[in-house]
Amino acid sequence: MRIVIATGGFKESLAAEEVAALIARGVHHAAPDASITALPLPDGGEGTARMLAAASGGRLVPHRATGPTGAPVDAHYAILGWPGPRTALVEMAAAAGLRLVPPDARDPGRTTTAGVGELIAHALDAGAARILVGCGDSGTSDGGAGALQALGARLLDGSGRELPRGGAALARLERIDASGLDPRLARVELVVACNPFNVLCGPAGVARVYGPQKGATPAQADALDRALCRWARILERDLGPIGIDLRGAPGTGASGGLGAGLAAVGGRLVPRFEVLLAHLDLDGPLAAADLVITAEGAIDRQTSRGKLPGEVARRAKRHARPVLALAAAIGPDARLVYGGIDAYACILPGPMPKTEAMARCAEILADGAERALRMVLLGTGLARAAGHRAPAPVSRARTPKGA
Amino acid sequence: MRIVIATGGFKESLAAEEVAALIARGVHHAAPDASITALPLPDGGEGTARMLAAASGGRLVPHRATGPTGAPVDAHYAILGWPGPRTALVEMAAAAGLRLVPPDARDPGRTTTAGVGELIAHALDAGAARILVGCGDSGTSDGGAGALQALGARLLDGSGRELPRGGAALARLERIDASGLDPRLARVELVVACNPFNVLCGPAGVARVYGPQKGATPAQADALDRALCRWARILERDLGPIGIDLRGAPGTGASGGLGAGLAAVGGRLVPRFEVLLAHLDLDGPLAAADLVITAEGAIDRQTSRGKLPGEVARRAKRHARPVLALAAAIGPDARLVYGGIDAYACILPGPMPKTEAMARCAEILADGAERALRMVLLGTGLARAAGHRAPAPVSRARTPKGA
Repeated sequence: MRIVIATGGFKESLAAEEVAALIARGVHHAAPDASITALPLPDGGEGTARMLAAASGGRLVPHRATGPTGAPVDAHYAILGWPGPRTALVEMAAAAGLRLVPPDARDPGRTTTAGVGELIAHALDAGAARILVGCGDSGTSDGGAGALQALGARLLDGSGRELPRGGAALARLERIDASGLDPRLARVELVVACNPFNVLCGPAGVARVYGPQKGATPAQADALDRALCRWARILERDLGPIGIDLRGAPGTGASGGLGAGLAAVGGRLVPRFEVLLAHLDLDGPLAAADLVITAEGAIDRQTSRGKLPGEVARRAKRHARPVLALAAAIGPDARLVYGGIDAYACILPGPMPKTEAMARCAEILADGAERALRMVLLGTGLARAAGHRAPAPVSRARTPKGA
Repeated sequence: MRIVIATGGFKESLAAEEVAALIARGVHHAAPDASITALPLPDGGEGTARMLAAASGGRLVPHRATGPTGAPVDAHYAILGWPGPRTALVEMAAAAGLRLVPPDARDPGRTTTAGVGELIAHALDAGAARILVGCGDSGTSDGGAGALQALGARLLDGSGRELPRGGAALARLERIDASGLDPRLARVELVVACNPFNVLCGPAGVARVYGPQKGATPAQADALDRALCRWARILERDLGPIGIDLRGAPGTGASGGLGAGLAAVGGRLVPRFEVLLAHLDLDGPLAAADLVITAEGAIDRQTSRGKLPGEVARRAKRHARPVLALAAAIGPDARLVYGGIDAYACILPGPMPKTEAMARCAEILADGAERALRMVLLGTGLARAAGHRAPAPVSRARTPKGA
């Protein structure tokens, strides 16, 4: 049996390479003779720069940048080895990821993408003709305001004073002075790898959907939504015309609205896997697989809306390959994924708090993968037994030989 | 596909009939065309009298009896409709089950099986020529001392005073006066349906293995083990010869040592499923099944040592049928069950405390069963696809027709 493990990481616990290796270990226990191909995949979030640098024969560029809380962090971006114009990949989470925001500082109205703008500027200094921005795992909801400030825009209140960092302050924005914006932005090809299901404003907007995860109360999320709508309107007035609706176009809500901010300075919002998987040979292994296994921290209603397991399933289905998904949690409406994903398993071995599940995640994932594969193998054995016994189509075809 | 669901209950949450129905619901969601047979099975513990009364066309006899803490409880036993001599089934848990011991009264040195003796006496009054005692789910560790007292034995300390209830008091036992023992015990066929892996004394003895579950500290468990060893020695001296070693023979530790106590008054200790499944047609459905599903609260190192899923698997394997087990918790050394059980799944959908898992157990079990069956079906589809594609034995046989 040829098994391809095509997976991203588990947020805040395991990188994609670790997830793939642990699943491979469990699968090997259950099926020692299976041919196993581990394909850790980037999703734009944490680890994307490292993975694409390695896969393309490029390199990581370390750069100290402003972190999401304003304190400096050791960030990095990648210069990729892809053919064509010199391409940098800026992983927004490296400078503004949720992991960089201490739990007691998780106020999405105050965190900033300034460091993302600094990484983009450094990539321009390094001669990048093309900059890909990977979205995902963000700890910010500032609409990319901090990134634009770092790139030279001035965000001014009614008194002409520059706004402090964070999305909440955008409620007081009156005017954007773009005269100091880095002129190289007009020439570089800026591509933002987004989840197209993330939009900036409204009931499905980034403040209301992701704000609570990042530490916002419902009232804070509502206020942030209004501030981001104001931000979009003033961006369109002072930097426009932009060509897309900054409030509702696909991807404008990516990484707390970074999509909208970068779109306003010429960034093109592209469904993330079109960019991130473009130079990885995923379809070859999928086509050759008997079984595709993917994984994510949670399988839920978001999974088929731009998440990696949904994308893996979509591509596997082009080749009519069965897909098994593993997750630490099965969320509401998970069954919406059926059709793309054939079966999914929760890897937990019993009742335990999330802290214990995260602390034991390596062992739990390998064991959970083994249990799931044994269920699949039970099914293959069952079908073979039925084929040898019952008047199913396959065994009917054998009858003439035996008769 | 013909699926047989052969299962007991989940301790302290779901009866066997409920477990079987919930699994059937989940299986039906995943495989609407499957033929599903639900076979709830007794294991000697809670529900055994009800299930065997129903299955045999017998009846339940309600009887108020002394409960495990000394307070009266509404207990019952069954008069079975089995052919042959009039047979009663006394479910020890109905009068001395753990569920009847309030959490703040869980001191296994103090709880008593007096009510079990009262139910046996009442069954004798009702003319039973054969009494089966179902062990399991006990809240006691008194070696059956209370049951023997209720049947007329006097347990005396060094001053000739009768001991108070509970296993801890057996440390002060000096002599058993059996002169008042119910004379009908000598004529009735008394069969104790035991887990043969439960023994009375020593490191694997009932006090050390089960005492902590019933509320004992390690020191209490050690003291209780010594008291039960003393109990066995004096039973052998004052009631012997008994014919088995009351400290270590299979089943002597059943239900906190009730096995040993009843063996001393003529009870025969029999592996429980030999008795409990004797008149249920389990082997017929198992032989006709494509897939056997079983379940228990936990799958662990005990599963293949006299637990119901282990027994179902053993019988299914006589007919070479694949077995899938579902559990709320996968315990240490669960993989010891492989060989009998082909695959097992934890039904939980994510991290949660045990209280939440128990409160949501119905929904969790049905959904967990559906997920597990979808993995099995993924495997059957995979085998069929391979059969149509690859040069496996089955598809080779088809080649001449196509050629």
